[in-house]
Amino acid sequence: MLHFTLDKILSLEKRYRASFINSVLGFKSLCLVGTKNTLGESNLAVFNSFFHLGAHPPLIGFIIRPDTVERNTLSNILETKKFTINHVTEAFYKKAHQTSARYPSDTSEFDEVGLKEELKEGFIAPFVKDSSIKIALQFREKIDIEINGTIMIIGEIQDIYLPEEILKKDGYVDLAEAGSLTNNGLDSYHKVEKLDRLSYAKTDKPLTSIEL
Amino acid sequence: MLHFTLDKILSLEKRYRASFINSVLGFKSLCLVGTKNTLGESNLAVFNSFFHLGAHPPLIGFIIRPDTVERNTLSNILETKKFTINHVTEAFYKKAHQTSARYPSDTSEFDEVGLKEELKEGFIAPFVKDSSIKIALQFREKIDIEINGTIMIIGEIQDIYLPEEILKKDGYVDLAEAGSLTNNGLDSYHKVEKLDRLSYAKTDKPLTSIEL
Repeated sequence: MLHFTLDKILSLEKRYRASFINSVLGFKSLCLVGTKNTLGESNLAVFNSFFHLGAHPPLIGFIIRPDTVERNTLSNILETKKFTINHVTEAFYKKAHQTSARYPSDTSEFDEVGLKEELKEGFIAPFVKDSSIKIALQFREKIDIEINGTIMIIGEIQDIYLPEEILKKDGYVDLAEAGSLTNNGLDSYHKVEKLDRLSYAKTDKPLTSIEL
Repeated sequence: MLHFTLDKILSLEKRYRASFINSVLGFKSLCLVGTKNTLGESNLAVFNSFFHLGAHPPLIGFIIRPDTVERNTLSNILETKKFTINHVTEAFYKKAHQTSARYPSDTSEFDEVGLKEELKEGFIAPFVKDSSIKIALQFREKIDIEINGTIMIIGEIQDIYLPEEILKKDGYVDLAEAGSLTNNGLDSYHKVEKLDRLSYAKTDKPLTSIEL
């Protein structure tokens, strides 16, 4: 086993450390965030920091680093209060990755990387046409994380679009069937294979597998 | 495509909605959090809401719901300021899931589910012996998320223990090689297969695959 202390981590070369710390925590949600500014210019950016906050109301959070290419996503969300989350599949993961290049603010990453925009009536933020699962969100809150200047955005789910066959009868969404990828660190893309679903854990009953 | 509006989501049966909203956002980091209280009693709980906050200093966040079995993890972290994050592999995912049962506060989930505790000198919080990757953390901040009463914990990485062969020469940790699982929703466990690693995205250069 290797052992890295905090001192050793802090002394690592900057890009090595970024890759190391970003990849050591576990697999992540990999989604594209679609926004527009008030001029109607679209932006699309890949993120992997989504987390579940609650189901009633349906709330999610994610982290933005305002000193990076992510700043356009932030300013658009604060301007229009709307954004979309779009799952990434094997068919277009390279295009998703390419959205992280530093394109000028007035160009659309949809055009630059070759992903088709999909608009839905009454919602300003654009969806990714080829995504398997698409979610429309209303901005609810911005929390400044002072310890390192990052920002947490809280969004409330307004609409969910997904293929019928991946939604199981108990509400479970089978993302392996949907072809959604996962991510590990800054630059890796992974396919996922279902191992098991387990029953609700009780102190006095053995676990069983859920087959739906 | 199915379409769920917010009204429809809010009208779903409670457990169906929890399963639906928890699983629709994407794959998650799946880790066990180990803590002790000041009496020396151990606690172990499975979480899937970890996110990267920064690499310098190395900071992570995760979400705790204080009205659930997760409350012991919260009170222990606030008492001792230390916790561990331990990756889950196929060898013991059922035991990891079983930690979510409501055991009495004074019993250790390590004992109840049959996972061996590992202590390291100078660090109060217990690690999971069989985990492939183990991280020691210092509590840094608690942020109350008022919109739904959840709590965000920020921890600073103090130590990382991992097998030498999964750490690549650019700092990337290959979690597929480590056998780390990912999670989708409340109860599903997934194996992961590497698809690709992509070069840093530039506006004027094609992407290439990284082979290390």
